[in-house]
Amino acid sequence: MSLNEVNDLFYLLENPTRRRILELLSREGHYPLQLSKEMSVTQQAVVKHLNILEEHGLVNSETEPSNRGPSRRVYYSTRSISLHVDVSPSTFKEQAHSSSEQDAILDLPKHKHMMDAINSSRKMDLSQRANLLDRVSKDIEKSLKDTEDERKSLIHLTNLVNQELYKITIESKCTYDERRLLYFSIQNPNFTIEKAASSLGMDDSDVRILFDALHRKGLIK
Amino acid sequence: MSLNEVNDLFYLLENPTRRRILELLSREGHYPLQLSKEMSVTQQAVVKHLNILEEHGLVNSETEPSNRGPSRRVYYSTRSISLHVDVSPSTFKEQAHSSSEQDAILDLPKHKHMMDAINSSRKMDLSQRANLLDRVSKDIEKSLKDTEDERKSLIHLTNLVNQELYKITIESKCTYDERRLLYFSIQNPNFTIEKAASSLGMDDSDVRILFDALHRKGLIK
Repeated sequence: MSLNEVNDLFYLLENPTRRRILELLSREGHYPLQLSKEMSVTQQAVVKHLNILEEHGLVNSETEPSNRGPSRRVYYSTRSISLHVDVSPSTFKEQAHSSSEQDAILDLPKHKHMMDAINSSRKMDLSQRANLLDRVSKDIEKSLKDTEDERKSLIHLTNLVNQELYKITIESKCTYDERRLLYFSIQNPNFTIEKAASSLGMDDSDVRILFDALHRKGLIK
Repeated sequence: MSLNEVNDLFYLLENPTRRRILELLSREGHYPLQLSKEMSVTQQAVVKHLNILEEHGLVNSETEPSNRGPSRRVYYSTRSISLHVDVSPSTFKEQAHSSSEQDAILDLPKHKHMMDAINSSRKMDLSQRANLLDRVSKDIEKSLKDTEDERKSLIHLTNLVNQELYKITIESKCTYDERRLLYFSIQNPNFTIEKAASSLGMDDSDVRILFDALHRKGLIK
């Protein structure tokens, strides 16, 4: 299993209780009993989900001595993962991504002022700090919203380009298999005849015939 | 069921065959038989998935007369949906979004040159058109990649802010319930005591006590 595989992230995240656990752990470490109370789910179910998440490296746990009674296990969220799927009439994109804290991208000069604000907050008194962080938090939310709007706009443009490409294949009387190869070549700019054949489930010789046809139509170089 | 609900999009998209169908339909309309061949899945299974997708408004179908034999149903992808989940040690975000072609955001001046290129391609000969669209397509890919990097960077900043906020709550000796209310107030800037109480499963009077404590600590206004 890989946290960079779409299928695997769907498996881990599809369960609403698991997502709620990750949400609660993103605030602070929790004991299974706390999670069970917050979510009104049995402790047994919580532990089952925590074990799956721990097994796949999304959380880890530590034993903590308790004032009274036996020591307790506290669970933390440890990994960054993201799962994005965008489906449109003429576009399909899916991606899974995982990274550890160390991989974080942060040197974008664009966000330097936010980083500076976070750093300078450390020197302030508690109430000022809370105030500043609250404002930075709202700025980040706003930038995230802008990023999402831009993404939507780009997906829409992809849709339009793909619709135009489809029209071209119709005007140049491409067959279904010619279009299959054309789309494969667009998605895999450095493809070889052999790779295309194995991926499309065809013989090399058939792919070569399709390639020549697309080349004659000026659709492929 | 709503295409703007995270749980519902997980239900629809979690199945790999369903995602593959949506991917194939994003290229062009397909008959169930074509899909079945492309995916090496029985036509019966394909039809079952197509029915679920059609029922939820993600695809529609038309009956098309066939040269020989009975008429056939052809399926099209019709809707834009996106499902995004980002999990990090100190951040949790999930969102579902759906829109129809008409809602598309497009007036961002930033992408005007891409839009212009798509429009001007219509006047060119086939080979030039294919060439230009290929270049626009690569530009869009590049911008999408930039957008994703920016998103990652912003999520990382959110992580840092949340870690600082957590430190503040520890330094000001907040209780677990005070933190619960604080996080609730950050996520719901216009919250009322009653809303917080019902969402956190507490009495109004208990929330008021927590609120006063946070207010005295300067963490809430």
